[in-house]
Amino acid sequence: MTNLEHLGLAVNDLEAATALYTTLLGAAPYKKEHVASENVDTVFFRVGGSKIELLAGTSPDSAITKFLARKPEGIHHVAFEVDDIWAEMARLRGEGFVLLNEEPKHGADNKLVCFVHPKSAAGVLVELCQTIAD
Amino acid sequence: MTNLEHLGLAVNDLEAATALYTTLLGAAPYKKEHVASENVDTVFFRVGGSKIELLAGTSPDSAITKFLARKPEGIHHVAFEVDDIWAEMARLRGEGFVLLNEEPKHGADNKLVCFVHPKSAAGVLVELCQTIAD
Repeated sequence: MTNLEHLGLAVNDLEAATALYTTLLGAAPYKKEHVASENVDTVFFRVGGSKIELLAGTSPDSAITKFLARKPEGIHHVAFEVDDIWAEMARLRGEGFVLLNEEPKHGADNKLVCFVHPKSAAGVLVELCQTIAD
Repeated sequence: MTNLEHLGLAVNDLEAATALYTTLLGAAPYKKEHVASENVDTVFFRVGGSKIELLAGTSPDSAITKFLARKPEGIHHVAFEVDDIWAEMARLRGEGFVLLNEEPKHGADNKLVCFVHPKSAAGVLVELCQTIAD
């Protein structure tokens, strides 16, 4: 794991949260992206070498909508950059971690991603991500 | 806010969580520190330019012990590095954010810290931190 790439926050009102985090962080977001495969709208802020990703569900099937039906808004996941997501997935599987997808999938922000079950990581939903080469 | 300095995780069993995160992150912790003022034991890992801080309470008065009495273990707070914590506290107070301490206090890892109430930050407990100059 080479970097704490981003922290994902589940929010109820993306517009309000964007205004709030623009003020809190003292900087405007650099990107807004709809991720159709995940049924989420996302807004990204840069903070040093990491990012804050605000996530709002766009359908009842969205993992974010389901999360917010059970819990108040707040931190949803932490994503670590890896150099070789297939190798990291194999390594973690070998160590007994439960992965939530069999193969890397396309996530937001031009990434291949894989999630580790929170039960494997002391209650934290961990994402592995690798930037897709141009 | 110049960097996502660290992510703080509240854990029930510091030794077990240290072993788990050593495997997950693929790197050993660089520091273990008892913070008497907060009644916590901490273990720090580096990931790129950020850190993962594991926190276990050492008394019933600890904020971590109280957190874990209400919630399962997981992410407790996110800390952003700032250049001038007094200036950032004044700026955020002026913007209507609720700060949990009036003055910066000494935290773990040689830092001055101040917390922002989660109700001010879309459910996220935000820490501002500034490294104390030698």
